[in-house]
Amino acid sequence: MVPAEPFHFEVRIRFIDTDTSGRIHYTAMFRYFESAEIEFMRSLGMHYGGDGFGLPRVHVECDFLLAIVYDDLIAIEVCLTKLGRSSIRLEFYARKLGELAAKGAVVVVCMDKETQAAVPIPDELRARLQPMLPNCPER
Amino acid sequence: MVPAEPFHFEVRIRFIDTDTSGRIHYTAMFRYFESAEIEFMRSLGMHYGGDGFGLPRVHVECDFLLAIVYDDLIAIEVCLTKLGRSSIRLEFYARKLGELAAKGAVVVVCMDKETQAAVPIPDELRARLQPMLPNCPER
Amino acid sequence: MVPAEPFHFEVRIRFIDTDTSGRIHYTAMFRYFESAEIEFMRSLGMHYGGDGFGLPRVHVECDFLLAIVYDDLIAIEVCLTKLGRSSIRLEFYARKLGELAAKGAVVVVCMDKETQAAVPIPDELRARLQPMLPNCPER
Amino acid sequence: MVPAEPFHFEVRIRFIDTDTSGRIHYTAMFRYFESAEIEFMRSLGMHYGGDGFGLPRVHVECDFLLAIVYDDLIAIEVCLTKLGRSSIRLEFYARKLGELAAKGAVVVVCMDKETQAAVPIPDELRARLQPMLPNCPER
Repeated sequence: MVPAEPFHFEVRIRFIDTDTSGRIHYTAMFRYFESAEIEFMRSLGMHYGGDGFGLPRVHVECDFLLAIVYDDLIAIEVCLTKLGRSSIRLEFYARKLGELAAKGAVVVVCMDKETQAAVPIPDELRARLQPMLPNCPER
Repeated sequence: MVPAEPFHFEVRIRFIDTDTSGRIHYTAMFRYFESAEIEFMRSLGMHYGGDGFGLPRVHVECDFLLAIVYDDLIAIEVCLTKLGRSSIRLEFYARKLGELAAKGAVVVVCMDKETQAAVPIPDELRARLQPMLPNCPER
Repeated sequence: MVPAEPFHFEVRIRFIDTDTSGRIHYTAMFRYFESAEIEFMRSLGMHYGGDGFGLPRVHVECDFLLAIVYDDLIAIEVCLTKLGRSSIRLEFYARKLGELAAKGAVVVVCMDKETQAAVPIPDELRARLQPMLPNCPER
Repeated sequence: MVPAEPFHFEVRIRFIDTDTSGRIHYTAMFRYFESAEIEFMRSLGMHYGGDGFGLPRVHVECDFLLAIVYDDLIAIEVCLTKLGRSSIRLEFYARKLGELAAKGAVVVVCMDKETQAAVPIPDELRARLQPMLPNCPER
């Protein structure tokens, strides 16, 4: 069986994303990881933020490898690397002109919006995510 | 009768508030106007965002008079300049070392959270705001 | 002579753009006006932020007409409405499903990056902007 | 020898910091870690962002343990946990009513602003940071 293709998303770094250092303010990268995650979910037919459950982040991280500046075009690859009982780990590889500029990860937990407690990932979401699990090549 | 004193709020411009130009990104000023508004409301005994009604902005504006940069200490004066049936206009005067650096305004409308429709300003809020109406000197 | 077409730019409202009210935080609209402005400039062959001059905002404003929420697709029309000696006024019309949801304006001043003083709009920028001046229909 | 006291910084979560989930948008926590870092540096007599060198982040991370919402008062403790040749690791412990709500870390690298290359931490900065190194109790 052929693994699913990684999901790709492209963003343009905006003036508001930068700071006095002349580089991107690092929090802006998380903005774009979020956009990539939302579009990744959409590509699987899921509407992020609907359906009675939320996906709050319990862990986020990012490593910065290259300077990213205003107007850079950044290609983000989204990889699903863990599908637990209630948690999901996504990794993000951000490339600038083909070179790895930043890589990050988020771990989200499926949460019932009413009770605010962690719940098992709904079957439909799991069924859609499962085939994406081995979608990233070794790095 | 002596008019109420204007409300004062002080902020420190952060690195994240700036952009590649070396100045504040202008949207950051609205962040601090919001903080000033919340603390102004608190000083009147109102908890912004509670009580079944919201205060969405219907108009916002700002003029920038001086360059504002990282680590500047900015003193914001909050003035209530209009108290309508359902709308409130607040003006903000931001000073840097005593000199006017930016001035802005927001017009908010009192909205029922359920119906999302404009409603008259609740009596309690009106009673607390009324004495603040003439709190700003001529400019 | 046929006036130039208005410039159009489309954005998707992200989760990070919203607040506890369930609507867009109003400052996010300015983020997208900025993106629209940058792409408008690019469409005219200008690289925003280059060339020794900056374009700091001296005035910004926005009116909000409809609730804008997470995942809304917003179409922004950019209109050049004033081309002064050193200042430029751009207006933005943001539509949601064809209906006007927000309209804003920014006035920027052409500033020499070295001296931080206002300077006349460079000839090349003026030449590119001039044909766009009457690009917006009456509203 | 008595270790230096950890540095404490208090912040109020603002409306703009939240999202449609009703909680803080996680990136806002990094905003406040930055403020805490700047004030930690100031408490040591250092002006962050001056002096010819920059401190770009090469790694950032955060774990979220409790829901943080609008208007929460958050106490952030700053701990210096590594002082390398050119890198510095700071950890942040954010408490809500005394309970750990989020903990994060940033690794910054001392960078020459001209060459954009990593350089050894300047002697003065090192001398000021060194006594803070064992400032955090076991956790």
